[in-house]
Amino acid sequence: MDTNQTHSLLNAATDILGKKDGFRVWSVIVTLFGDLARNKDDQISGALLTHLMESMGIRPQATRVALHRLRKDEWISSQKFGRTVRYSLTETGFAQSLEARSRIYNVKPTAPENWHILIAQPMPQARRIALDQSYISKGYLNVSPGVLLGKGKLSENYSDFLGLEGDLKTIPNWLKSSCAPADITQGYDALCDDLAQFTKLLESHPTSSPHETAALRILIIHNWRRLLLRHADLPAEFYPDDWPGLMSRRLVMGLLDRLKRPPLPELQS
Amino acid sequence: MDTNQTHSLLNAATDILGKKDGFRVWSVIVTLFGDLARNKDDQISGALLTHLMESMGIRPQATRVALHRLRKDEWISSQKFGRTVRYSLTETGFAQSLEARSRIYNVKPTAPENWHILIAQPMPQARRIALDQSYISKGYLNVSPGVLLGKGKLSENYSDFLGLEGDLKTIPNWLKSSCAPADITQGYDALCDDLAQFTKLLESHPTSSPHETAALRILIIHNWRRLLLRHADLPAEFYPDDWPGLMSRRLVMGLLDRLKRPPLPELQS
Repeated sequence: MDTNQTHSLLNAATDILGKKDGFRVWSVIVTLFGDLARNKDDQISGALLTHLMESMGIRPQATRVALHRLRKDEWISSQKFGRTVRYSLTETGFAQSLEARSRIYNVKPTAPENWHILIAQPMPQARRIALDQSYISKGYLNVSPGVLLGKGKLSENYSDFLGLEGDLKTIPNWLKSSCAPADITQGYDALCDDLAQFTKLLESHPTSSPHETAALRILIIHNWRRLLLRHADLPAEFYPDDWPGLMSRRLVMGLLDRLKRPPLPELQS
Repeated sequence: MDTNQTHSLLNAATDILGKKDGFRVWSVIVTLFGDLARNKDDQISGALLTHLMESMGIRPQATRVALHRLRKDEWISSQKFGRTVRYSLTETGFAQSLEARSRIYNVKPTAPENWHILIAQPMPQARRIALDQSYISKGYLNVSPGVLLGKGKLSENYSDFLGLEGDLKTIPNWLKSSCAPADITQGYDALCDDLAQFTKLLESHPTSSPHETAALRILIIHNWRRLLLRHADLPAEFYPDDWPGLMSRRLVMGLLDRLKRPPLPELQS
């Protein structure tokens, strides 16, 4: 594949999938590490990082600033080897990356065998909202004020709640609507359009280089996870049948399957 | 047993257990039918009714008025045989009596194998209170606004709710307190005192006639059911350990076991 064609594919892809509102450079780097640094001690050279970021239209200076921030936040660490720098995820960074990965790359979220529900004591609204928020961040679905639905069995630590563990029997339409809030639905609608456009683009560029493939994967995954991680992780039956979040997942998984991840050593060499 | 002693036992018992605030004559008759008319077609003669009611200090005229009301409400029906009248429960009256009986005479309410919980859609308060009330009257426990706990498996008819069916894992203290509201707790406290006093009285009157026994049972059951049917039907673990409702049940069941129900034909003869 000649460089011109490669260049034009990445440029066109970046026009479609890059530079969205709210894209943060450090956040793109997080996506990059999530896709390429699969093992605990994987290192990515500064040169590869800068190259991949640049191919998505992000200037080296912006990448440097973002890397500095991520190092300060102890999300990544760096090691110098003569004139080259290598970055790797810290323990915290790797743990968080691993957790997000289980959602991002999940082809079909299946319902757990058990569910549990926690009912909080009636309390003043401000306190209740804070309580609900703290459980949402643990992955609970906030069904209604003070009512939290969680996956799996109930652990022993919830003696302040009425706790029931068992099978989910009915998921009403009002809950499905609340699991699919308007802003996220709009985001997925736009993503479906973008991915359809990108799929067409890919058809006229049947092959791509390892670096190009890596950059394309990062663009796709970044768009996907920005929406995905803003809502609860639930199986398909929690959403309206025609929800674009379900279609987005199918499109993303199809594209990632087609654009297989190049091995890190191959990219690094 | 001589009539004087019988008379003084019933008088003393009525002093303790009779004529409470809010005792309604028709309601005492409901208790009487519940205890004596165990089978669908059991008839109680007007003479026996009047006699038992009079022995609890209720005048024949008041009994007549109450019987008239219960007949008008189609709770009982009457049949004339020459100069005697016989009363029996209507189909509705018997069904309701049977339902209440399963609670009133239950020595130890046990937890069901399954529980289910219904979560209603967030809605305006007035509508939600009406919804909660309609489920409370079906025997649900209103855990918090729009959250209803029911016994047994979930039937298919609840598609407007999020429905979970399974095991109850934790019953928090705040729920135990709300299951034992202050006014009912006070009522049970007073009943415990009355029953202790009555038990002492009974010790000095070791035997009693069938009519006397029937009247004493009705006095006890009436006090008991007036409190019992004002709160949800739940096993002991839903209440604070020292709740007087649990002690009241033990005292009532002990007394009813001691004052065995006289057979209706024996009373009627």
